[in-house]
Amino acid sequence: MNQQPQSAYEPLSEGSAILLTKKLGLFNETASLECREIGDGNLNYVFHITDSNSRKGIIIKQALPFAKVIGEAWPLTLKRAVIEANALKLFGKLCPEYVPEVYYADEELAITVMEDLSHLTITRTGFIEGESYPLLSRHIGEYMAKTLFHTSDFAIEHGRKKELAVQFSNPELCKITESFVFTDPFFDVESNDFEEELKAEVVLLWNDSELQLEAAKLKKSFITEQEALLHGDLHTGSIFACETETKVIDPEFAFYGPIGFDVGQFFANLLFQAITRKGKDRELMFKHVEVTWDVFTETFRTLWENEGMEAFCKTKGYLDYILQKILEDAFGFAGCELIRRTIGLSHVKDLDGIENTAERIAAKKAALQAGKILIKQRKNKTDISFIINTVKKPALTVNY
Amino acid sequence: MNQQPQSAYEPLSEGSAILLTKKLGLFNETASLECREIGDGNLNYVFHITDSNSRKGIIIKQALPFAKVIGEAWPLTLKRAVIEANALKLFGKLCPEYVPEVYYADEELAITVMEDLSHLTITRTGFIEGESYPLLSRHIGEYMAKTLFHTSDFAIEHGRKKELAVQFSNPELCKITESFVFTDPFFDVESNDFEEELKAEVVLLWNDSELQLEAAKLKKSFITEQEALLHGDLHTGSIFACETETKVIDPEFAFYGPIGFDVGQFFANLLFQAITRKGKDRELMFKHVEVTWDVFTETFRTLWENEGMEAFCKTKGYLDYILQKILEDAFGFAGCELIRRTIGLSHVKDLDGIENTAERIAAKKAALQAGKILIKQRKNKTDISFIINTVKKPALTVNY
Repeated sequence: MNQQPQSAYEPLSEGSAILLTKKLGLFNETASLECREIGDGNLNYVFHITDSNSRKGIIIKQALPFAKVIGEAWPLTLKRAVIEANALKLFGKLCPEYVPEVYYADEELAITVMEDLSHLTITRTGFIEGESYPLLSRHIGEYMAKTLFHTSDFAIEHGRKKELAVQFSNPELCKITESFVFTDPFFDVESNDFEEELKAEVVLLWNDSELQLEAAKLKKSFITEQEALLHGDLHTGSIFACETETKVIDPEFAFYGPIGFDVGQFFANLLFQAITRKGKDRELMFKHVEVTWDVFTETFRTLWENEGMEAFCKTKGYLDYILQKILEDAFGFAGCELIRRTIGLSHVKDLDGIENTAERIAAKKAALQAGKILIKQRKNKTDISFIINTVKKPALTVNY
Repeated sequence: MNQQPQSAYEPLSEGSAILLTKKLGLFNETASLECREIGDGNLNYVFHITDSNSRKGIIIKQALPFAKVIGEAWPLTLKRAVIEANALKLFGKLCPEYVPEVYYADEELAITVMEDLSHLTITRTGFIEGESYPLLSRHIGEYMAKTLFHTSDFAIEHGRKKELAVQFSNPELCKITESFVFTDPFFDVESNDFEEELKAEVVLLWNDSELQLEAAKLKKSFITEQEALLHGDLHTGSIFACETETKVIDPEFAFYGPIGFDVGQFFANLLFQAITRKGKDRELMFKHVEVTWDVFTETFRTLWENEGMEAFCKTKGYLDYILQKILEDAFGFAGCELIRRTIGLSHVKDLDGIENTAERIAAKKAALQAGKILIKQRKNKTDISFIINTVKKPALTVNY
């Protein structure tokens, strides 16, 4: 791996971040600039620079070298910043409505200067506070269809696709997903993290050989199938939204993988909300799942019919086969996400934030049970209602 | 793509080939060297250098730049020589018994200096002359199991596999297969090449929408599934053999693809012989198919059990699932090879060499029919006998 970027690397300060924006001419000469570091200081710096005169702002994101993310030390090189900047630029070309604009990127400094989205909220946070983002599913369905179709072999010449697959080869970040989504949660290993009250359920899960076999197949698909350039981490923490607007950020996990992975990860993160909500609020989440799939398939179908480059695009039944494969894969990948966010290393606040222990444990059991069903029964399910009914089942709130 | 190798490139002559071997110290000082160019002069130079004293020899293979291979001009860069040399070296490490030794390789000159195999015969040629190579299937079964298992995610760390997948990204050569194996034969396009007597069969094939859909799926698998480092062109013209020895050459099509492609291509090329032979000679070919699969699965299973690195290798049913997938894929890929070698751009001498027109056309119809059945009926066939019975069927020699 090319080590050069790390040697020329220097972390920005709030002062040098302002200097950089001036050098790049991103603000008027008369601008009165303020800078605040708003990142979590662990993986990346995120500088928010605003002009108090015009009220315009920008974001500078800088990757930290050898970030400690997991346990003691899981070193990450700065290459992820290059992947992220290139993915933002490519996705932005394919779907400008839902991707922040990139003004500048520097490989050596591992920085990306981009559109200020501070008028929006991270969707997970908004959801937990009770927001429902009525256009979210329409936007994400369209975003996924456009980015995934246009980077697939159906839309671009195979040689060009292979070049992109090499450019976005992302072994470091893929390894995180391979370990913490597709492996560790299914085995009794130290990285897992769950409440004692879940122990019995988890032991059952570890001993479920049918589940293991299906998880193995899903992992193989994730590792070997280069269908399209995925976002790779499309949960509600990677999406900024408000009532009318949606922006997908943080594609540092981007790589060529199976289309259903992005779709399934988004589904699962809607389901965490469905699991924690009641009544009409819960139905809104199921509606989001349904609309996501409807808009995705409708958009994908239109693109296929109008812009399909592959000779077999006109072959009867091929598009239906592809959409069915994406749906089955998405169910399975959603199941993996439901399980790993419940008992694996990296949790979601949707569940962990439930203060009442009995309710939290019940919600987590529901997530585990739904995850198991989605993984084991995904085959030949032709309708999006399968995933909704799986979470709706009353049996999910009781022991099994 | 890196153009550098082409600028420093210079074609060897018989004289400069001898000078190179001297420079490399591959022969004694007292050697009396003779050199003969034995390639087809189209894609590559192949220099055979022998010492008339010791009777030892070596081969120098040099790729020609922008070779005209297909129709008017299908330019190929010299990168294929690098892929080939690296693949020979890697396969040679994993399976030295069946891979020629590489003594030296030079990227800029696009040359590979390797073991002299002139005591062996190209298997296709030997077959056509009536040879049966009793150990061939045992050797190739073992060769495939070792090279494919050891380059798969089951045997190596995923990050290392991804590095290899980038190193062996081979869009130029893959494009040849994508076009001439998986696309053109299924459509009425100019590159196809067949006798007028086959026209009715071929038109039926072009209008067989079930066949097209299954061919589309197989093409997708070839393009997207990075299971292992394939030879990529494992027909009987890429194998040197005698009664006791087998060597696999010419891996310039090497890339990360679906394991069943190598297996299926080898099957199909045994079947061309089965189709043209009669009685016991024909049975020998079926036996070769059977032994190939038996030895492949037995070796793959042993490697999996003893050297499997993937966490799910111990999961009940996973190996069986993988072997079943390889078998189904191999049936389908064998079907594509049978069809494309019969009506596509690049034929095989096994069929084209049949002088009697009626016999030749009957054999080609049998190949087409078998190809269609293998592609359309491959799913859920658990036994190697399916491919043998498909070719054995008497219906194959008559019109359908």
